[in-house]
Amino acid sequence: MGPEDQANELPQVLVLGPPPVFPYLESQFPNRFHFLKPWLSNLPLTQFLISYAQSATALLIRGGGTVQLTSAILDCLPSLQLVVTASVGVDHLDLPELRRRGLAIAYAGNVFSEDVADMAIGLLIDVIRKVSAGDRFVRQGLRSTKGDFPLGLKLSSKRIGIVGLGQIGSEVAKRLEGFGCKISYYSRIKKSMAPYSYYSNVYELAANCEVLIICCALTEETHHIINREVMVALGKDGVIVNIGRGAIINEKEMIRCLIEGEIGGAGLDVFENEPRIPEELFHLDNVVLTPHVAVGTYESRMELSKLMVENLETFFSNKSLVSPFVD
Amino acid sequence: MGPEDQANELPQVLVLGPPPVFPYLESQFPNRFHFLKPWLSNLPLTQFLISYAQSATALLIRGGGTVQLTSAILDCLPSLQLVVTASVGVDHLDLPELRRRGLAIAYAGNVFSEDVADMAIGLLIDVIRKVSAGDRFVRQGLRSTKGDFPLGLKLSSKRIGIVGLGQIGSEVAKRLEGFGCKISYYSRIKKSMAPYSYYSNVYELAANCEVLIICCALTEETHHIINREVMVALGKDGVIVNIGRGAIINEKEMIRCLIEGEIGGAGLDVFENEPRIPEELFHLDNVVLTPHVAVGTYESRMELSKLMVENLETFFSNKSLVSPFVD
Repeated sequence: MGPEDQANELPQVLVLGPPPVFPYLESQFPNRFHFLKPWLSNLPLTQFLISYAQSATALLIRGGGTVQLTSAILDCLPSLQLVVTASVGVDHLDLPELRRRGLAIAYAGNVFSEDVADMAIGLLIDVIRKVSAGDRFVRQGLRSTKGDFPLGLKLSSKRIGIVGLGQIGSEVAKRLEGFGCKISYYSRIKKSMAPYSYYSNVYELAANCEVLIICCALTEETHHIINREVMVALGKDGVIVNIGRGAIINEKEMIRCLIEGEIGGAGLDVFENEPRIPEELFHLDNVVLTPHVAVGTYESRMELSKLMVENLETFFSNKSLVSPFVD
Repeated sequence: MGPEDQANELPQVLVLGPPPVFPYLESQFPNRFHFLKPWLSNLPLTQFLISYAQSATALLIRGGGTVQLTSAILDCLPSLQLVVTASVGVDHLDLPELRRRGLAIAYAGNVFSEDVADMAIGLLIDVIRKVSAGDRFVRQGLRSTKGDFPLGLKLSSKRIGIVGLGQIGSEVAKRLEGFGCKISYYSRIKKSMAPYSYYSNVYELAANCEVLIICCALTEETHHIINREVMVALGKDGVIVNIGRGAIINEKEMIRCLIEGEIGGAGLDVFENEPRIPEELFHLDNVVLTPHVAVGTYESRMELSKLMVENLETFFSNKSLVSPFVD
């Protein structure tokens, strides 16, 4: 049996995006699946799918807003049974449509929770203690000429509001306890086990906090939930950290608030129209901007790679998914 | 009685440096002391002291390597009884000489411990998760053109070695527990209450850790305690964070190790010959450099200001110092 025949007997997995984890996954777990890679073909996507993906039963897809799984794509995939997204967020999936078609969904589960929470704390300290701004100051050689650098604000004992106390929000809260912060949160439903103050709306949370950390998923309900009123309630020294999704904040209003001094600063790993990042932000000293890397560690990528393969393998063996996405 | 007579009846406090806290202190607590300010005079320092500071009983001095309290200065201050340093470190004071002269010493005590510990965590996350490097990447507009940014390393579950488990080191350890890190430490003497692994020498600590956080004081014993051997033992992915004093690390060797890839990165708030910072560091992407601001928050400056005044007032009322420095 030649290599091509072997490949044809392996389960057919279409890869869209591709997710950044894919090269790791492919090299870590060779010869388990036959991957279909439309980005290597000259054909338009739809044409590729019609020509090569008719028997693909599983789809491995990148998260994070660069690719959308539309009905038009799904219509080209008659054998599809499983969608595996290499992300925690599922805003690029049309969930009702996937449910209607009876497709199973697996996602990144909690693989990234610790990394994302670590990054949230890193961004927060960076903004209020001016770490990146200080680094710029030093690298421009201003330390010996310009003298004293502006003071930051103290993190310990600050009142921090967490928007969305899921897995990531809880990891953020756990870390902030070690800093002696006072933690509150907003979520749709009060978490009976959480030892933090609950607010049933984001405005009230902002009015009672000095920092907001956005940890919720992007849904219709959370789209632009951080609007101008919320930011003004947070106040002139207030800081926003966003490691969720860009569109949870009204980005245009946030930029205006940052420029006008209605809020004090922001640490942003995500943006409303990625990969585009508004250039107005580049000139502000009170923001820290990272290129959507809150999940970006070597260790988690290896772990995600393993998790994606486990989901595919359990599915092809008719077992339960390891990390099924549940609404 | 005119204002000058009033001033002459107030306790005479010489100010050297001056410490960055001084303007806050002066405006927060007016008319309690008569401050002598040599930096406003055209006279050379010694001449100023001989002319105006003969009855100064207390000295308020800046810390951090920009001013040294020498015997020559002390010889010009026959009435001096108290030295108040606005710093945690006392490496700019000649302690044996001050003891010999029977002078009392007050220092910043624990005012800064939380802020310095917060900064240590901020620098650590920044280095291993490439926050400032990511911010540079974004501000250069590379996000939409250059695509994926390099992966960082995971903080959670890392083995962290704390050099010096005093007040600051303990605050650092407390914070790191929330991140699920494995904490070890080096100090001269094992702390019976500390729930962390103890190493009796720094080399062994480095060999068993992935991160070193320098929290000890600069003394003859700790000068260059982080030498090339220690850094090589820490290893190629190893990270050093220094919020202690620059000369605790052999800076020249550290720069060589960073350039040659013998260690993975460094987060540095202090440098060996401040305010000079070696320019070789400015071109490295694996370092984060801040201008000695680990103590620099508005809240702590106000608290320090209060503490300095309390030390002066208790001393002038013949009561015990609030934050006496004890070897």
